Amino acid sequence: MSQAKIPHDLLIKIVKEKHELIPKIMKEKGIDCWLIFARETSVNPDPIMNQVIGGDVVWKSSFVFAFEGEKFTKSAIVGDFDALAEERKGIWDVVIPYKEGISAPMKELFQRIKPSKIALNYSEDDVVSDGLSHGMFLKLISILSDKKDLFISAAPLIQAIRGRKTKTELELVTKACELTEEINHKMTKLIKTGMNETEIQNLFHDEMDKRNVVEAWQRVSCPAIDAGPDKEYGHVGPLPNSKTKKGHILHNDFGVKFSGYCSDLQRIWFFGSEDEIPEELTHAFKTVHGAITKAAECIKPGVTGFSVDKVARDYVKSQGYEEYAHALGHQLGTNAHDGGLLLGPLWERYGDIPKGIVEEGNIFTLELYVKTKNYGMVSLEEDIVVTKDGCRFLVPRCDKFITIEDT
Amino acid sequence: MSQAKIPHDLLIKIVKEKHELIPKIMKEKGIDCWLIFARETSVNPDPIMNQVIGGDVVWKSSFVFAFEGEKFTKSAIVGDFDALAEERKGIWDVVIPYKEGISAPMKELFQRIKPSKIALNYSEDDVVSDGLSHGMFLKLISILSDKKDLFISAAPLIQAIRGRKTKTELELVTKACELTEEINHKMTKLIKTGMNETEIQNLFHDEMDKRNVVEAWQRVSCPAIDAGPDKEYGHVGPLPNSKTKKGHILHNDFGVKFSGYCSDLQRIWFFGSEDEIPEELTHAFKTVHGAITKAAECIKPGVTGFSVDKVARDYVKSQGYEEYAHALGHQLGTNAHDGGLLLGPLWERYGDIPKGIVEEGNIFTLELYVKTKNYGMVSLEEDIVVTKDGCRFLVPRCDKFITIEDT
Repeated sequence: MSQAKIPHDLLIKIVKEKHELIPKIMKEKGIDCWLIFARETSVNPDPIMNQVIGGDVVWKSSFVFAFEGEKFTKSAIVGDFDALAEERKGIWDVVIPYKEGISAPMKELFQRIKPSKIALNYSEDDVVSDGLSHGMFLKLISILSDKKDLFISAAPLIQAIRGRKTKTELELVTKACELTEEINHKMTKLIKTGMNETEIQNLFHDEMDKRNVVEAWQRVSCPAIDAGPDKEYGHVGPLPNSKTKKGHILHNDFGVKFSGYCSDLQRIWFFGSEDEIPEELTHAFKTVHGAITKAAECIKPGVTGFSVDKVARDYVKSQGYEEYAHALGHQLGTNAHDGGLLLGPLWERYGDIPKGIVEEGNIFTLELYVKTKNYGMVSLEEDIVVTKDGCRFLVPRCDKFITIEDT
Repeated sequence: MSQAKIPHDLLIKIVKEKHELIPKIMKEKGIDCWLIFARETSVNPDPIMNQVIGGDVVWKSSFVFAFEGEKFTKSAIVGDFDALAEERKGIWDVVIPYKEGISAPMKELFQRIKPSKIALNYSEDDVVSDGLSHGMFLKLISILSDKKDLFISAAPLIQAIRGRKTKTELELVTKACELTEEINHKMTKLIKTGMNETEIQNLFHDEMDKRNVVEAWQRVSCPAIDAGPDKEYGHVGPLPNSKTKKGHILHNDFGVKFSGYCSDLQRIWFFGSEDEIPEELTHAFKTVHGAITKAAECIKPGVTGFSVDKVARDYVKSQGYEEYAHALGHQLGTNAHDGGLLLGPLWERYGDIPKGIVEEGNIFTLELYVKTKNYGMVSLEEDIVVTKDGCRFLVPRCDKFITIEDT
């Protein structure tokens, strides 16, 4: 069996860990009712479904977490063919199956629980809190027409549920990072000077296949392979005419999915001995490495996302480089870009997201590049977990150019 | 490499086939501008992206298909890191990269093309036409605030683009069906009387792994395995205490994904020789088989979805059985439930969807069950493609109980 997907039992274990958090976070955020309204989630998934529902539904389904006074209840209204699967999970107080339509049982449930607000999965800025489609929103307006003024965004709730990684989740992301580094280390032996990007990507794919793991993002650019000075990094596949060469560098951006959880690391190789690394590259590497160190030293629960980015960004500029054109870090989990708080600048593209607060248990990437004049971009990416008073790297950092000395 | 995912070159081939259709169908449906507005589609996919864009985007992206007078243009506005990947596909007239925010280039583009309407990916009833999230809809309202009255649903367009399978798509679904039947046939040799559902599902998973194909829906219920008389079918995993037994039946609902395209078939086994099959089962089988035959005889381009369902449903009732509690058929493609027109009854749960018109090139399942008193449910499912004047089964039908005579 592929190790890419999470086994059902392990998934339900994570769902139960998350269900422990839900009432606590709902109180914290002042939300008395959360409605997940979804259908055919294998075709059009809601990104939070897997962690709190633990699988897909076919027909229109309502999952309702609500405080009725002090009593906390969890209800699932699902098509009759989906009902048994929900019951067997053992996570619902009540499973209400329907045959012809979901309207009647939904109206009845909301009549009873009388919520002050109804939090829904939409957000302009945060993709993982935006699982409710617009068509389903319109459908909801027609079913709960007398309650539509109560609708609010569930984003603060979802971000906390998703961002506070459970013990099991942290183990899985760590394992994904370890496998990624295992493959990177193997590559140092397999890559030869003169290989082109396609050949190198194929070597990675072979090692992934041997370990039964899959790419953390689309395979055509996972790993992204960048050889030589002339390539802009980005979400693009290998170029067959880009070749490695003595005196040049090779960069990758690589993550695997293990039991449904992702890694995302960047490493950088130099073709030649350590003595042969030119000062221009050494300075660039030190800058990138130093910026990550500075960010890691300042990140802890309670700081804003943009303040962590700023420390790294200012350092890069102080060293005479143009600032990097992306955020310093994103969260990592079931997706390589796991949504929620970003360690990013306050640019239009990131909306209000970087204003959020770092929490214990968050897993972030720390990544940035600088551009050199003669060797192209120099870039690194590390994965960290936020601890009680700082952070911890999930696998040992890349502290210097990895050298390939076959010529 | 896993055969589950579509190779990039083949995907772009299909995208190009679909791009041939787009202006034609837009004219047919009277739509002069179609906007796909998406972000982080590996986390929160828009179901139509793969067929018309051919891959994921990270930052907010606008893909605009528009008639400017008689001139048809295709524009992609994407984050700068996504731009090279779009350019290399060779499917856009222009790729417009942005760094800090998408608003300015979007406003500029729409200022120029002056659409009469802007079709967006939302639909209350059709999941595959509902890829625009509510948060992204709100974002769009704020970016194109002066054009928000022009927004209409792109559902008629998307359903036709998705439903009219190209030559390449038909080949891939057919191959998925062939692999499914290859595994089903192998199972007839491997399944022994007395095995439980979990053991049987494991046998299927082993054969899938050997062939490097994955499940067409969630693995816990793919294949769904139903042994003996006491189980309601549905989206539920195997029950370890449900065992096969001489004189009983075994049913499965099984599909694989091959190069990104799905099969979805149901087969049924009897433990014993043909002579031993009781009349009650024979009659149930004939009814299910006959209902599928009647549906296949009446389906052709131009008929409504519900009329096809009705023929089968009426036949089942005429034979003295309770009607089946689902639609007779759904479309099949990149997803087992591929959205668009359903061959279903006019129940609340299906909305207006079954009122749509069958088109040449549509691939449908034909599936139904009847309940017997002593042997549980008897159910079959076949996959057909709609031809110019009728339909064709993609693989040979199941014409009788498959017997397992090991005792």
